[in-house]
Amino acid sequence: MTASLISGRLAVLSVGLDSFGRSLREHGAASLQLDWQPPGDGDPVVAWRVAQLAGDGADPATPGSRIDRANKVAVERVLAAHPVLMDVALHARDVWPDMDRMLLHAGAPVTWQEMCGPMRGAMVGAALYEGWASTADAAERMLEGGAIRFAQCHDAGAVGPMAGIISPSMPVFVVRNQTHGNVAYSNINEGIGKVLRFGANGPEVIQRLKWFEQVLAPVLKRAVLASGGIDLKAIQSQALMMGDEVHSRNAAATALFFMRLAVAATGADIERHATHEVLKFVADTSQFFLNLSMAAAKATMDAAHGVEYSSIVTAIARNGVTTAIRVSGLGRQWFQTPSDQPAGLYFPGFRAEDANPDLGDSAITETAGLGGFSFAASPALTQLVGGSAAQAMHYSRLMYEITDGRNPANSLPAMDFAAGPVAIDVRKVIDTGIQPVLTTGIAHRSAGVGQIGAGVVRVPMNCFVRALEALSLQSGLA
Amino acid sequence: MTASLISGRLAVLSVGLDSFGRSLREHGAASLQLDWQPPGDGDPVVAWRVAQLAGDGADPATPGSRIDRANKVAVERVLAAHPVLMDVALHARDVWPDMDRMLLHAGAPVTWQEMCGPMRGAMVGAALYEGWASTADAAERMLEGGAIRFAQCHDAGAVGPMAGIISPSMPVFVVRNQTHGNVAYSNINEGIGKVLRFGANGPEVIQRLKWFEQVLAPVLKRAVLASGGIDLKAIQSQALMMGDEVHSRNAAATALFFMRLAVAATGADIERHATHEVLKFVADTSQFFLNLSMAAAKATMDAAHGVEYSSIVTAIARNGVTTAIRVSGLGRQWFQTPSDQPAGLYFPGFRAEDANPDLGDSAITETAGLGGFSFAASPALTQLVGGSAAQAMHYSRLMYEITDGRNPANSLPAMDFAAGPVAIDVRKVIDTGIQPVLTTGIAHRSAGVGQIGAGVVRVPMNCFVRALEALSLQSGLA
Repeated sequence: MTASLISGRLAVLSVGLDSFGRSLREHGAASLQLDWQPPGDGDPVVAWRVAQLAGDGADPATPGSRIDRANKVAVERVLAAHPVLMDVALHARDVWPDMDRMLLHAGAPVTWQEMCGPMRGAMVGAALYEGWASTADAAERMLEGGAIRFAQCHDAGAVGPMAGIISPSMPVFVVRNQTHGNVAYSNINEGIGKVLRFGANGPEVIQRLKWFEQVLAPVLKRAVLASGGIDLKAIQSQALMMGDEVHSRNAAATALFFMRLAVAATGADIERHATHEVLKFVADTSQFFLNLSMAAAKATMDAAHGVEYSSIVTAIARNGVTTAIRVSGLGRQWFQTPSDQPAGLYFPGFRAEDANPDLGDSAITETAGLGGFSFAASPALTQLVGGSAAQAMHYSRLMYEITDGRNPANSLPAMDFAAGPVAIDVRKVIDTGIQPVLTTGIAHRSAGVGQIGAGVVRVPMNCFVRALEALSLQSGLA
Repeated sequence: MTASLISGRLAVLSVGLDSFGRSLREHGAASLQLDWQPPGDGDPVVAWRVAQLAGDGADPATPGSRIDRANKVAVERVLAAHPVLMDVALHARDVWPDMDRMLLHAGAPVTWQEMCGPMRGAMVGAALYEGWASTADAAERMLEGGAIRFAQCHDAGAVGPMAGIISPSMPVFVVRNQTHGNVAYSNINEGIGKVLRFGANGPEVIQRLKWFEQVLAPVLKRAVLASGGIDLKAIQSQALMMGDEVHSRNAAATALFFMRLAVAATGADIERHATHEVLKFVADTSQFFLNLSMAAAKATMDAAHGVEYSSIVTAIARNGVTTAIRVSGLGRQWFQTPSDQPAGLYFPGFRAEDANPDLGDSAITETAGLGGFSFAASPALTQLVGGSAAQAMHYSRLMYEITDGRNPANSLPAMDFAAGPVAIDVRKVIDTGIQPVLTTGIAHRSAGVGQIGAGVVRVPMNCFVRALEALSLQSGLA
């Protein structure tokens, strides 16, 4: 038997580590490399856990089958969610009345001591904007000493890109999921250059925030109320037909939002010059829709949160130090690990060493199937983050491997309108070793420098390993 | 020798007609089919002409080399052209003062007797709109009897989609090629449903045209003048990044135009309600930009027209009976042949038998490298016209075979930002047998029914055969 096996021509299927196959190929043997890695990256405990939690079609009583059923409910909620911009609160304190000398920030909780440069810079800026301090030094002392408290956006039902700072006087978008009735919030996009969310806090930053409060928000509020609500799900869906992945590229979504805004604003009794100023700002801010896309994704994923036993990821958030995930069936707990550095393209004069670790709540869009999951929709984004149209498509294809849903509202034209992948299953990430792809902006690690590039980052595997452990415990299997 | 040839295993490269290869494959022989057809579709005269007119790098004195040099000039003009919307003329007669009881129409000249249903219907509507007649019957008699004259848009420097009717009271866009100084015009898009350009002429059509004259055009004019000009080349270029091919799909281009319009209109001293009405109309008309895209393409291609000896196609126009082309070095002559039927998708209740032959001046966009030539940019368009994303890409790839230029402004994201194909060379169409691809709307053959579908049509080969003959004559070779 052995003799006949090696008497013929040898063709090798090499599974896993490429080095085996490479060695064969170097010696002239035919070898096909199968891209596979053991679940849990070879850790037998993790591999055993994920095997124990696998669904079993034949036995509905297993813990895995119970998770499958829960995920089905969570996916249905994701697909049915219908986020609509209903209002603009003129001040965050109108939404959270007990928000006094308090700042909301992106990601999981973090202390001042641990906090990254851009988030510190943004907090200082917010303190100056609020008038709590008159110098940056004074603001830092207040923040360090606890005179200004801070909490995460997510627990307030909010999301903010990059540093994600929301202070009591800032206006916020009010997005309602019309299907399930839950509400999500976000701050307003400041455009590019020197902006608070990247840690800038100079006079022009503060002045813009004041203009938001005094001019932008009142016009937006009146226009949105006059419109009867702006359908964000429809805009996201259309924008995917128009080269956006609605996270790092929002050129089309912003234009579509702008059309509805301008029609509503000119139809309402708003002073013409204020309307003009606001429209000019939105037209010049191609990422204006980002914050709306995030709030829409938050409203969608919050509806899928809290389904008992579900292993669907309902939030991915980065505070600039850790990347953290929340899981539908695992309550408010964050499963976190140090953030990775995005890989991408840097603006002239900057390089990877300057980059802050991955930052911001914007990865909520990926949990809802946008961003890296819909990368196939946005070959244009490769101009900003690098890569090719084929790679963009490849990312979307990969994400099907780790998701439980297909969203017809996230239809991908380059893939002949395939319904996009949605609802990350912790078990599938572990089982396949495929980390979720996020498209992202890259912040300078020092406060105030701002955005220095854009790229792609993968959610660290350790987040999922920790979540899996909690799922095992929950199922009494640990 | 013969013996050794057939003693081995037979592998056949079959060139041209598939039937040879098919027969071999049916008998189990290996056969590779090469998609090729003889130049001039097997007509030896045509094949000889195209061979005679081929460029010869080694001998700059040949007629073909002279054509090559001329085409280089024409291509440079196409790439350098920079169309900008400078003004809106409130009435066509402001542009053409001697335009009295006269209608401009799409395509090459055509008599009332030969004219297709939709164009007749549109002419009747224009006569009613102008008040030249009070009933459709009376209008028809005037048109038939010569009391209303008609001429082609193209000779007036204008273009109009479908029937392409411009009457003296209609407002027109004024587009200037800032590089070469030439100006082009088009009428204004009416949206979908019952519209003049598809031959509808009922009261709601006339009423809309009156509103164009009284409300839309004055607002557009003031906004455009206040803006200092709206850069159409930039919008086309951006729209190609956003899922438009800027002929049959203009969703992004319209949104981008809308943003500039709304900012300018609210910045100018225009009555708020009129601004609101106009913005609402444009926002609801996703093909609003089509007529601007056409005028931009006309301004671009007119700059490349009249280069002595050039074999570049500077216009493709269809009057609903014939498809006609103009060639840069061949003056105002049209080379025409009966139009083909578009192939595509029909709206519910309609079918191919209902379709009018290919109609309208909008194929000017393809001469400028948009539409079918940039189909790779618009997988979303396949939802309207059928086909797949791969086929859209295939069409763009094919068009490289028949063009002399690559336009970096028409960059195609799905092809990793390749500069799009532009400037159809009559010789290459004949030589390769590849007919230019046009994306197009499909009109019902009866007046007044309107659009019944959308699809793709190829420019008939005979247009190029005729143009080639003229090129041969011009070079003294016929």
